[in-house]
Amino acid sequence: MEFKTATLNQLPAIVRLLADDEFGATRERYEKPLPKEYIEAFAKIEQQMGNSIIVVMVKNEVIGCLQLTLIPGISRLGTTRGQIEGVRIDKDYRGKGVGESLLRYAINEAKTMGCEMIQLTTDKKRKDAHRFYERLGFVASHEGMKLSLIN
Amino acid sequence: MEFKTATLNQLPAIVRLLADDEFGATRERYEKPLPKEYIEAFAKIEQQMGNSIIVVMVKNEVIGCLQLTLIPGISRLGTTRGQIEGVRIDKDYRGKGVGESLLRYAINEAKTMGCEMIQLTTDKKRKDAHRFYERLGFVASHEGMKLSLIN
Repeated sequence: MEFKTATLNQLPAIVRLLADDEFGATRERYEKPLPKEYIEAFAKIEQQMGNSIIVVMVKNEVIGCLQLTLIPGISRLGTTRGQIEGVRIDKDYRGKGVGESLLRYAINEAKTMGCEMIQLTTDKKRKDAHRFYERLGFVASHEGMKLSLIN
Repeated sequence: MEFKTATLNQLPAIVRLLADDEFGATRERYEKPLPKEYIEAFAKIEQQMGNSIIVVMVKNEVIGCLQLTLIPGISRLGTTRGQIEGVRIDKDYRGKGVGESLLRYAINEAKTMGCEMIQLTTDKKRKDAHRFYERLGFVASHEGMKLSLIN
């Protein structure tokens, strides 16, 4: 397994993973050619300091991904948070510790870059995900609240 | 009431608000001169595209603040999220709608800058905060999980 920051070459595989998901199926469009919205979004991620997609690869194939964004802040004596979004593992590779390895890699990257806390939100319906993150030491101390601005 | 992006001039007042809080009291150091960690953190926020502290002012005094960070992402067809952290209102101005006005200003800013979703996490012990955000249309659909990297 190889862990690395994604480049545009890996974007179609990342969208495939995001679409191949209980909630993602209705939210994503994995098409050829890839919808330009994804390409534009990837460019914005690359332009923002501290924002990146990390992929895990086996034999040159993307089998997992997550987004790691470093957010410097004032609170807690100027703590930088590492925010994780969009964690996905290829169906064929689940239950083999790939997700745990990917998370541990991202946590270590965040630590190296000066983060003092990692945070994420996970849908209350994803019970398996909660147990997964709790095993990694995460504490469900907060409510994760969302407000859609569409419509 | 005036709403604006904070400059270094407002930083001591922001730290005062963060420290004057049930949980912030033990986490922050509101001292003169201001600990250099805050000044360094503020510089990092200013350097990161899409990251800012918004303050609400009355008669040239900061009476409220929050952090708004725009996070471009791949999921949901390349959605940009607006993430809110560190919402605080001066004790003397609570219960007067200042928080609601500040949030509505930040939500509108995020919308103008192309965000399709606003998200935040709030400590499960802050029951009043949950009701406040629900009144603004937020839905507590997610668990907010944190992992401390200190110690």
